[in-house]
Amino acid sequence: MLLHDEIFEQPDVVAAVLDRNRSASTLAREMIDGSSHVVIAARGTSDNAARYAKYVWGTALSAPVTLAAPSLYTRYHAPPDLSEATIVAISQSGQSPDLVAVLEEGRRQGRPTIAIVNDPSAPAADLADVVIPLHAGAERSVAATKSYTASLAAVSLIAGLTELDSLPRAVERTLATEDEIASRVRAMGPIDRAVVLGRGYNHATAFEWALKLQEMAYVFAHGFSTADFAHGPFAVIEPGVPVFAVVPEGAITDDSMAILRRAADEGRADVTVITNVPETGLPSIATPSVPEVLSPITFIVAAQLFTLHAASVRGVDPETPRGLQKVTRTA
Amino acid sequence: MLLHDEIFEQPDVVAAVLDRNRSASTLAREMIDGSSHVVIAARGTSDNAARYAKYVWGTALSAPVTLAAPSLYTRYHAPPDLSEATIVAISQSGQSPDLVAVLEEGRRQGRPTIAIVNDPSAPAADLADVVIPLHAGAERSVAATKSYTASLAAVSLIAGLTELDSLPRAVERTLATEDEIASRVRAMGPIDRAVVLGRGYNHATAFEWALKLQEMAYVFAHGFSTADFAHGPFAVIEPGVPVFAVVPEGAITDDSMAILRRAADEGRADVTVITNVPETGLPSIATPSVPEVLSPITFIVAAQLFTLHAASVRGVDPETPRGLQKVTRTA
Repeated sequence: MLLHDEIFEQPDVVAAVLDRNRSASTLAREMIDGSSHVVIAARGTSDNAARYAKYVWGTALSAPVTLAAPSLYTRYHAPPDLSEATIVAISQSGQSPDLVAVLEEGRRQGRPTIAIVNDPSAPAADLADVVIPLHAGAERSVAATKSYTASLAAVSLIAGLTELDSLPRAVERTLATEDEIASRVRAMGPIDRAVVLGRGYNHATAFEWALKLQEMAYVFAHGFSTADFAHGPFAVIEPGVPVFAVVPEGAITDDSMAILRRAADEGRADVTVITNVPETGLPSIATPSVPEVLSPITFIVAAQLFTLHAASVRGVDPETPRGLQKVTRTA
Repeated sequence: MLLHDEIFEQPDVVAAVLDRNRSASTLAREMIDGSSHVVIAARGTSDNAARYAKYVWGTALSAPVTLAAPSLYTRYHAPPDLSEATIVAISQSGQSPDLVAVLEEGRRQGRPTIAIVNDPSAPAADLADVVIPLHAGAERSVAATKSYTASLAAVSLIAGLTELDSLPRAVERTLATEDEIASRVRAMGPIDRAVVLGRGYNHATAFEWALKLQEMAYVFAHGFSTADFAHGPFAVIEPGVPVFAVVPEGAITDDSMAILRRAADEGRADVTVITNVPETGLPSIATPSVPEVLSPITFIVAAQLFTLHAASVRGVDPETPRGLQKVTRTA
């Protein structure tokens, strides 16, 4: 199965993106260090890679990161003043006209531009001072998997993180747990809705897992920051609602576990956690121990497998999602 | 009913916030004009007011606006370098520790700070160089209504928009359509899930309507940018799924209508639009004609009434949402 194959290519893809972009990523880091803030244009799965960059470049490079509002450029014809900014596009195809418009405006204003793209011949790459190719090979499934983990690896490389060399092996070890994941999904039975929670570095993972559940399994899934969830959406919790969460060992473990326990105890929600915390007291999918900042990569691989099996339990074909094409052009 | 009363106070509240903040809003505008970008800290409903500010200050003031990631300050202890930024907190209570932490860091770095708050004695106000009080009076319902429209009015006042004087009357005329809204909701029957779409200035409205549906009526509602929706989530559309949208007359009318017609025709979704476009060809709730940039204020008032009646159709008491308190403290 194509999607399953692409998921299993990820150890090699992550290794390639880390190995083949050393100098380009140093140039990109210098650009970001030389500007007061970063504006990222991205859509869909790549927007979740941008969410990851917001936290990783925030902590590692002290850079305030803004997700661009492309309609300011394409619809309202009132692009912001980008002086002091570095402009970044993240895109599998590098073709969506709205992303191209943001890069073009960055160049028009004389600002440095970076493109993180899988197709280095794409229009977005032509407009960038520095191109970081994802080296993920052709991604033929509509649902992006390997291009997403490759984007996260590129973001972490630009951040100059250490311990990156351990990533391909950690992804491989996560893939090796497919059978445990599949049996947990089967035990859960078909699901048609879900709340998905994550915070900090894994805010991105919550949104990306929710997007995979939507695209691959037609689950009405909603990603939230674990902190935002307490400000209102908690009211949707009721007995039996599936609540999925990603919780790393690290800075946000205790808060996250507290809200999950509240959902399980007060709300009687069906909580399942993807985690590398050794003992959670909640139904958990265990992933290898990695630094918190890298956990979004192992966690999303587990979530991809989870979702693939959730689609199969529902009898949905995850490779031909209704209403979608591989390259989506919005303006 | 308390919530109904608070919704109906909005013409007066909007008039008060516009009338009583003329000089403070000019100071705030000068601060923003003097910085290269804006960082806004907000949670829950106020986060949606921040989404509105991203577009309004983007178009009117050419300012790139970033929604702060509070965990960088409170959990990872790695706040971004805020030089060149103006820091803004938007909050009904002005008490959540994470927002206070962002303002404190702004001051520590010597940056100008603005607080848009309903309670001017709150900690957030003490940390701000300029305070914009919302003058909304005590908001006792857990679900924020009048403090949200007051925040949007404050944001539009800071932007220096014209035609603001027409707003209170437009809100009043929207409230006068309650009976039509109620009968449309009753005809729809009980709903337990919904997709909510909006774009540009009304990206905020989609998220805020979804949040009201979650808090007041326990509807599993998901807000999306209309453009993002085409990049994946479209797959959740199936016959009978309620799709709600806000579509103003203006720059994004045609794209938005195209995707809604596709959802209705291809997906056989149950589409309902809050709009001031005279003829949509889709089931619509009509609101008064206002400039597109102000439409989020009239649209959300219609959406609040819609949601109040949706709660009643489901037999949910919208005034005591399970699991929530009025003041939520996250760190």
